Amino acid sequence: MNELIKKLREFAAERDWEQFHSPKNLSMALAVEVAEVLEHFQWLTEEQTRNLDPAMVKKIREEIGDVQIYLTRLADQLGISPLDAALEKLEINRQKYPPNKVRGSSKKSTEFDR
Amino acid sequence: MNELIKKLREFAAERDWEQFHSPKNLSMALAVEVAEVLEHFQWLTEEQTRNLDPAMVKKIREEIGDVQIYLTRLADQLGISPLDAALEKLEINRQKYPPNKVRGSSKKSTEFDR
Amino acid sequence: MNELIKKLREFAAERDWEQFHSPKNLSMALAVEVAEVLEHFQWLTEEQTRNLDPAMVKKIREEIGDVQIYLTRLADQLGISPLDAALEKLEINRQKYPPNKVRGSSKKSTEFDR
Amino acid sequence: MNELIKKLREFAAERDWEQFHSPKNLSMALAVEVAEVLEHFQWLTEEQTRNLDPAMVKKIREEIGDVQIYLTRLADQLGISPLDAALEKLEINRQKYPPNKVRGSSKKSTEFDR
Repeated sequence: MNELIKKLREFAAERDWEQFHSPKNLSMALAVEVAEVLEHFQWLTEEQTRNLDPAMVKKIREEIGDVQIYLTRLADQLGISPLDAALEKLEINRQKYPPNKVRGSSKKSTEFDR
Repeated sequence: MNELIKKLREFAAERDWEQFHSPKNLSMALAVEVAEVLEHFQWLTEEQTRNLDPAMVKKIREEIGDVQIYLTRLADQLGISPLDAALEKLEINRQKYPPNKVRGSSKKSTEFDR
Repeated sequence: MNELIKKLREFAAERDWEQFHSPKNLSMALAVEVAEVLEHFQWLTEEQTRNLDPAMVKKIREEIGDVQIYLTRLADQLGISPLDAALEKLEINRQKYPPNKVRGSSKKSTEFDR
Repeated sequence: MNELIKKLREFAAERDWEQFHSPKNLSMALAVEVAEVLEHFQWLTEEQTRNLDPAMVKKIREEIGDVQIYLTRLADQLGISPLDAALEKLEINRQKYPPNKVRGSSKKSTEFDR
């Protein structure tokens, strides 16, 4: 992750793109990249998305790469480590959704992360 | 990252939520979390999003944590490491956008990741 | 539609919100509202979303109202009628996807609108 | 709007695409189309999006057409008129945000539709 953060800073600096990388703009770019993942899945059944062929996985891997790139860049502009943020948020979710209360319920699953 | 992946697997297994975690569903959850980041920024100027107060950053940190959680979980369901995917995609972007051709251009920046 | 456009202009003017309603900001607000629709559907099966109970439909009706509000407002700021734009785009799609070539194919359906 | 609804039903029926048009899938398609609008605006300043050249407006007009198409189709699958839903939601918003309380405040504007 530190390597990625560092390389993204260099990438933006070398191209003088820092000026475009406000958190507002980066959040939009992040949304655009996530939509490219959705586009692959929109007409497939859930079952089909659990059994993708390797060519499709390869394409989605690139989109996931782009999502991670923008998420990391956005977080870096705000002084946040996305991994630390995720681990801490997971701890909050863990306490919010005790297994014995939410087991197998899609209803609670809906609030997986609230 | 490996720690996060492992903890997310346990988290889903303990709650019997694996059944809901198809790539299709996880991509939707990812989009929902990204929109919560956008919601904080939608009426702010770019300048304001570059100078957020600590209370706002704290809230956005939680949203970014959620985005990283779903991105990691989605990638894991497809056998993908999001960090490796990002580093490889960055290499592709690097060759696609040579600094001397795109420097300071928002036009090229638009296609930052294509 | 004309009534909606007119009421939205008044609504913004009365609150002095015109200053926040740049196309950029409105596109973000539109994405946020669409995500609220997604949130209702993310853990449901396709079948379940075809058979929602009336209470759920009522909630989604409000989200759809918000999506139509921001779409109309965004279009109005650009001098576009969303209904005319839709009818014209449908004509383009009709010629792009002749029934005898794409019948029953999710593959073509993926590009429904390209 | 009634003409659009009717034409969209015919369009789907002629192509046997009804099977793909679950509310869940249509909400994903809607999100994908909205992201195509965002993509045009992501690196532009707010000011630039208020002063787009005609060629750009023409492109965005097509994206807005697609958003209206999927929104209408989604609403129709749920027995909802998007225009009626918008007019009713606007009435709710009107009472929620009295002009004298929220005038010129981006803070309240943030909750334009809650």
